[in-house]
Amino acid sequence: MSNRLQTLIEELAIANRILGHENVVDAFGHVSVRHPDDPARYFLARSRSPLLVEPDDILEFTLDSEPVKPTNLRLYSERVIHGEIYKMRGDVTAVCHHHAPAIMPFCITGKPIVPVFHIGGAIGEEVPFWDQHDEFGDTNLLVVKPEEGRSLARTLGGNSVVLMKRHGATVVGASLRELVSRSIYLCWNADYQFRASLIGEPQPLYPGEIKLAGAINVKTTAAERTWEYWSARLKASDLWPLQQQAKASRRLASKPPRAPGRTKRRR
Amino acid sequence: MSNRLQTLIEELAIANRILGHENVVDAFGHVSVRHPDDPARYFLARSRSPLLVEPDDILEFTLDSEPVKPTNLRLYSERVIHGEIYKMRGDVTAVCHHHAPAIMPFCITGKPIVPVFHIGGAIGEEVPFWDQHDEFGDTNLLVVKPEEGRSLARTLGGNSVVLMKRHGATVVGASLRELVSRSIYLCWNADYQFRASLIGEPQPLYPGEIKLAGAINVKTTAAERTWEYWSARLKASDLWPLQQQAKASRRLASKPPRAPGRTKRRR
Amino acid sequence: MSNRLQTLIEELAIANRILGHENVVDAFGHVSVRHPDDPARYFLARSRSPLLVEPDDILEFTLDSEPVKPTNLRLYSERVIHGEIYKMRGDVTAVCHHHAPAIMPFCITGKPIVPVFHIGGAIGEEVPFWDQHDEFGDTNLLVVKPEEGRSLARTLGGNSVVLMKRHGATVVGASLRELVSRSIYLCWNADYQFRASLIGEPQPLYPGEIKLAGAINVKTTAAERTWEYWSARLKASDLWPLQQQAKASRRLASKPPRAPGRTKRRR
Amino acid sequence: MSNRLQTLIEELAIANRILGHENVVDAFGHVSVRHPDDPARYFLARSRSPLLVEPDDILEFTLDSEPVKPTNLRLYSERVIHGEIYKMRGDVTAVCHHHAPAIMPFCITGKPIVPVFHIGGAIGEEVPFWDQHDEFGDTNLLVVKPEEGRSLARTLGGNSVVLMKRHGATVVGASLRELVSRSIYLCWNADYQFRASLIGEPQPLYPGEIKLAGAINVKTTAAERTWEYWSARLKASDLWPLQQQAKASRRLASKPPRAPGRTKRRR
Repeated sequence: MSNRLQTLIEELAIANRILGHENVVDAFGHVSVRHPDDPARYFLARSRSPLLVEPDDILEFTLDSEPVKPTNLRLYSERVIHGEIYKMRGDVTAVCHHHAPAIMPFCITGKPIVPVFHIGGAIGEEVPFWDQHDEFGDTNLLVVKPEEGRSLARTLGGNSVVLMKRHGATVVGASLRELVSRSIYLCWNADYQFRASLIGEPQPLYPGEIKLAGAINVKTTAAERTWEYWSARLKASDLWPLQQQAKASRRLASKPPRAPGRTKRRR
Repeated sequence: MSNRLQTLIEELAIANRILGHENVVDAFGHVSVRHPDDPARYFLARSRSPLLVEPDDILEFTLDSEPVKPTNLRLYSERVIHGEIYKMRGDVTAVCHHHAPAIMPFCITGKPIVPVFHIGGAIGEEVPFWDQHDEFGDTNLLVVKPEEGRSLARTLGGNSVVLMKRHGATVVGASLRELVSRSIYLCWNADYQFRASLIGEPQPLYPGEIKLAGAINVKTTAAERTWEYWSARLKASDLWPLQQQAKASRRLASKPPRAPGRTKRRR
Repeated sequence: MSNRLQTLIEELAIANRILGHENVVDAFGHVSVRHPDDPARYFLARSRSPLLVEPDDILEFTLDSEPVKPTNLRLYSERVIHGEIYKMRGDVTAVCHHHAPAIMPFCITGKPIVPVFHIGGAIGEEVPFWDQHDEFGDTNLLVVKPEEGRSLARTLGGNSVVLMKRHGATVVGASLRELVSRSIYLCWNADYQFRASLIGEPQPLYPGEIKLAGAINVKTTAAERTWEYWSARLKASDLWPLQQQAKASRRLASKPPRAPGRTKRRR
Repeated sequence: MSNRLQTLIEELAIANRILGHENVVDAFGHVSVRHPDDPARYFLARSRSPLLVEPDDILEFTLDSEPVKPTNLRLYSERVIHGEIYKMRGDVTAVCHHHAPAIMPFCITGKPIVPVFHIGGAIGEEVPFWDQHDEFGDTNLLVVKPEEGRSLARTLGGNSVVLMKRHGATVVGASLRELVSRSIYLCWNADYQFRASLIGEPQPLYPGEIKLAGAINVKTTAAERTWEYWSARLKASDLWPLQQQAKASRRLASKPPRAPGRTKRRR
């Protein structure tokens, strides 16, 4: 594997953990990035909580969301979200699907999310809703069939975020770091709009402001500052060191330590 | 004790701590599991906050909620909740009683909790209310008499959760991990429903969706992912190592360290 | 100093830190205990945030709130709250004054706090309001004059909690541990009542239930469980070891470490 | 550089981190202090999240917000906020610009913030609103032109806080510690007022109370207590040691550790 690809995969692992640590994804949710040299492939972790993903967990998939190398590992059941969006949106390089607490009041009531502060401009002027029940009737609400993924991608259209009724959201970006930033600030914007609406009438950004403010997060000064900040927070929580942590938590998951001597390695 | 039983008891200690760490139980609340080889027995900790329970704290009880071996240890006063539910519900293998902050607005107002997102489907279509005052008049609201436990179990009926007015909730599961997952996602569902109801009309899952989505948490991919995730969070908070921590906190509870030399073992 | 007194002073330092760690007190707020052998004296820290109080910070005061031994240390300006309550209430052994976030919406709107869950019964059936402006006109709202303290104590009357308009609350207990428990559960009760009132009509405990449930926290099983729990949480946050920490934070407050070698002792 | 200046710059780095740790600033926001010997100069960090600022990041600027020594480092794009306020307000020695979550509901709805508890008196009787759109039409809402900074300073007038519609706030102080305290308690006041307004009619302080209570934070006992408290909290989060941490996070930002041996230095 080239150094460049290796670096991208490490960055995807970090993006997973940052989004886990910043309360966008939790036990569930997933983050992918398109292959930089082959637009018909993308990278995504095996079925694992994003906060715990390490580079070795990351696999390569076709746009039909099949693993390029056969594997016995468990895979996310909703991979088609990623594959079908990459098929339909050539400009999209990274995708995140999540159920962040901040957005759920909107997903449950159908109230639209609109940009209410400058950094929230990153979500764009329109955030469409998709309801799996409209087209597919009663399901367990997981997006597992290619046609479900395609339907979601169609509703997303040319926008940056699609809200999923009684479920969550899917966010896209032109780069991995843009995706991370947009996913986090979608949540902040949702929280601010939620609380503002409890004491008055939230005044959204003017359309012209949305266009101009939407670019703040991808300015070099902002992008470097946010990535360093979220990385430092992740590290301060002892969640940075990817490989070692993963080994330890796998060992713990299968067998709790019993002898005092084994508990020495503490946080 | 067989290795299998030993493992179950360790898992019960971990379940206690996970539920403590995820804000389901706090100083109060308790978690039990039925004896796998003898359905007329169950395991439950001595009177201790779930976050601090270690395997050695766990005792065996009859379904009349008496300890199998006589003991001088203090016991939870509300054990009958567990025993009476195990008597009435042969399909139930694990029970959790709690007063999680997320559900309290519903317990205090009598507003029903309904599944509002796919993972919340785990609570089932109906979540009944029980009011101790209806049958027993003025009490301290603790469920300590067998007839109080039986009354609660009757209101639970065939459901998975029962809300207790001005008190909390009791949750049941077909396995310990199912119980942990349902207990946590009951709280998330309650929080989402609570906040959604402040900005609009929450739209619950369709009945067909509840049935289908209710099984998500027990799918192998989901169950493995959540258990690994909650375990890793617990471990990152320095609360995993069961036995050593317990000894230390017991020592601290009885006598605060005074000489600097004794404070060396820090987090 | 007798061992018994030494132990009480250590316990007062721990109570300070527990109340700081559980978000009852913050940079401000203070906690005192009456002298067990001389009801005309009480113990209170020098002017310091409760989270940082260590045994050596604790001084002895007369009921006129003057230090028994002359001192150059800075003292809390609101000590009269403690002294005047101890004068008027022979049954009170411990006092806490605070501005916990959970109670502030009630202090600011004048909406009464009522017990809404069994453990909240500890606050008692009536929680009176005191408004310093009624009797003293424009002040900086600090309770610094003996007559202000006496006025507050009169409004407290025979109750366990008094809310102070645009300011905070004062809580009393028959023992230090009862005080800690009541102070914490006042906050929980306020938070539950606050959130319940946003989605419906909170149903308070029946008067008979308040009387019976009010005693839960002082039952031996409950008191031991809560103290061990809050102590373990405090310790897990690296805030337990009283003396060493204090020395370190004093050193840091006066001079930030600059050479890498000095930063070795990290959390 | 004189020892006195060195100490001020270290204190500015600590102020940055305290405000980051207490949720006033986040990835964005910035804090400055006027040069004590030359009122036509001020100190401000290079473009970096305040939580990560170390003394070496701090540069000297003219009141036209140009760096005194030419530099290739990236700079905050909104420096004119600081320079233009220092020009217009000779009494101001420190400035903080932020978008704290607590104030955003007010910035988005235009509801005024008023002092609702004694310590909140520090924000003063009037908190004016500034809307960049009024004078400058569609922008990305960043305050980057000198005339934008001047317009904001004019709206601030003789007050201590100005709220910026759909953006955030700017706070000033007569000293760095007064600024830190006012910035934090503005957030607490906003949060209390927000929640109070959900259950009733918040009663603000009487005008005479605002004047008297506004001085609480600068009393020596209070100022020493808060600074020690916020410093101790910062230190407990492993964020104090300025230089070492910075080096580590810079190293991490550029290259994630891969070999287990490199992950040894854990929190």
